[in-house]
Amino acid sequence: MRATVMYRAGDVRIETVSDARVIESTDAVVAVSHACICGSDLWPYKTMAHSDTGRRMGHEAIGVVDAVGADVRTMKVGDLVIMPFAYSDGTCVFCHEALHTSCVRGGFFGVEGMDGAQAEALRIPQADGTLFLLPVGQDDALMPSLLTLSDVMGTGHHAAVVAKVGPTKTVAIVGDGAVGLCGVIAARRLGAEQIIMLGRHADRIALAKEFGATNVVSERGDEAIERVRQLTGGHGVHSVLECVGLEQSMLTAISIARPGGAVGRVGVPQDETMPGSQPAFYNNVTVSGGPAPVRAYIDELLPDILAGRIEPGKVFDRVVGLDDVPDGYRAMDQRESIKVLVEP
Amino acid sequence: MRATVMYRAGDVRIETVSDARVIESTDAVVAVSHACICGSDLWPYKTMAHSDTGRRMGHEAIGVVDAVGADVRTMKVGDLVIMPFAYSDGTCVFCHEALHTSCVRGGFFGVEGMDGAQAEALRIPQADGTLFLLPVGQDDALMPSLLTLSDVMGTGHHAAVVAKVGPTKTVAIVGDGAVGLCGVIAARRLGAEQIIMLGRHADRIALAKEFGATNVVSERGDEAIERVRQLTGGHGVHSVLECVGLEQSMLTAISIARPGGAVGRVGVPQDETMPGSQPAFYNNVTVSGGPAPVRAYIDELLPDILAGRIEPGKVFDRVVGLDDVPDGYRAMDQRESIKVLVEP
Repeated sequence: MRATVMYRAGDVRIETVSDARVIESTDAVVAVSHACICGSDLWPYKTMAHSDTGRRMGHEAIGVVDAVGADVRTMKVGDLVIMPFAYSDGTCVFCHEALHTSCVRGGFFGVEGMDGAQAEALRIPQADGTLFLLPVGQDDALMPSLLTLSDVMGTGHHAAVVAKVGPTKTVAIVGDGAVGLCGVIAARRLGAEQIIMLGRHADRIALAKEFGATNVVSERGDEAIERVRQLTGGHGVHSVLECVGLEQSMLTAISIARPGGAVGRVGVPQDETMPGSQPAFYNNVTVSGGPAPVRAYIDELLPDILAGRIEPGKVFDRVVGLDDVPDGYRAMDQRESIKVLVEP
Repeated sequence: MRATVMYRAGDVRIETVSDARVIESTDAVVAVSHACICGSDLWPYKTMAHSDTGRRMGHEAIGVVDAVGADVRTMKVGDLVIMPFAYSDGTCVFCHEALHTSCVRGGFFGVEGMDGAQAEALRIPQADGTLFLLPVGQDDALMPSLLTLSDVMGTGHHAAVVAKVGPTKTVAIVGDGAVGLCGVIAARRLGAEQIIMLGRHADRIALAKEFGATNVVSERGDEAIERVRQLTGGHGVHSVLECVGLEQSMLTAISIARPGGAVGRVGVPQDETMPGSQPAFYNNVTVSGGPAPVRAYIDELLPDILAGRIEPGKVFDRVVGLDDVPDGYRAMDQRESIKVLVEP
């Protein structure tokens, strides 16, 4: 079968690899019908050191169950499923606490030693706990939006939840990528009164407004902070969704939070230390977040997608086959594309 | 009148200064009957650069109202009051949100330009909002415990609240100073099932156990982290109270938090960056806290002190007059004393 392998920064190849197969009795194999390129895939695309064996890429997918191990109970060959970016057994203490990304028998797709979803198929550990059975057909027009439940919509939702978004709250979004845009959807869905998008790209700003952003701040650095304060009576916002992961974006996030406010961070942090420790402290700003337990959020978000109340699939502005995945990386890295859908 | 003035690290003097007096119509003057030395006073005691004018010290007091401005409505000369470490108007948006330490007309005692409480008297801005009328006499035996409501008990409580301590929760306390010890009281009071004190000093450990600590971890660094994990089924604790403020203590706090857990930090951070950004992220550990809105907590904590259900005053193990305040700093800095009570 064919799969996406990254060998070093900028070097993404489509290669023939061993067919995905059941190894553990709790595994399934999923034939990928829809996958995508994640903003977090751009970090190794920018920085990865050379690897002789390469790294299989991709962690978001919808697909059809192609094989199941002897102990898989809840699905059968032919079922259409969402594959969240983390696998999890669904039964451990953390899964019971709805923190599937900390499952004691869990892990992540598209990392060293694991299959990736930008491929014709992949092995799914802990299939019963990991996969979510979809109640629609593979050709459903909602497929792009449903695909976002594997990561980006659930991740934007997680940022909003841990940033304590709710009715009457003021919210700011740092990062106008696909996660930030889904954060706008999540903030509006949770009842936020004011949603300020920090961003400068016309196409992304237009989509943010369509999703419910009430204000756009195109300034940067201190000017952006000042502008957000002006828009919020001088105090800053109750909730900040940090969807980038860089030192500067985190510092901006903390600086625009209102005293007693919260920053929900879902941008993968690129540094070992977090800036703004003292202003966060003196303003009693809470910093929370991490890998989103998207598996836990599907139950809540799916009905809104099926009913058309939210349309996160609009973040996809390009569709490619497997052969064009390397160009998809290039396009996202150069900001030609917000998010690339892959149909292997 | 006499007051404590710090001129540089290690140089604390008792000097004659201008008498405290009403300046704004919302001011009161309080004659201090009880004050104390705070762990946070030890930071300037260790590091302060030379100041020609010096810094007035002390931010925790009980005293008697000695004068009031024309607009003070809720107290009169002769009233016995608690003075929280921050002044606040009690009416602004943040005071209404119970975050008095972010009051828009507020500030802190014992900082540049403000009076300090290690003195015979001091000026209290926003007296109506700041001071809390005590329902007991000045010679009440509970005075040491009541004095802790001005900072240390409210601060330990704040750490526990923002670390989400509650029934069935496992808790660890980093820092065996007076705040950490009050954190033990707070954690037990909020129903924690297991309370692990990280500390090595026999007198402090004994008091922690008396206050409700169920386990003591005397190891340091990685060994301490390993020991806490052993005590908690391998996962770490739900809630960590960080009561130090150093890089190493914060890293320990994040490292012993369970996935999905929370660190409540009340130790004044000594660094601009926070360590452990990546482990906190990957484990979805929340970091919260800051200057405790102790004014907001008095209503809740006072009845437990008056009824004898909690005895935070036990953190005081030395009582000095004003002349011996410099030696009190020395004793606390050298860990001869947990916390020094001052009777000016």
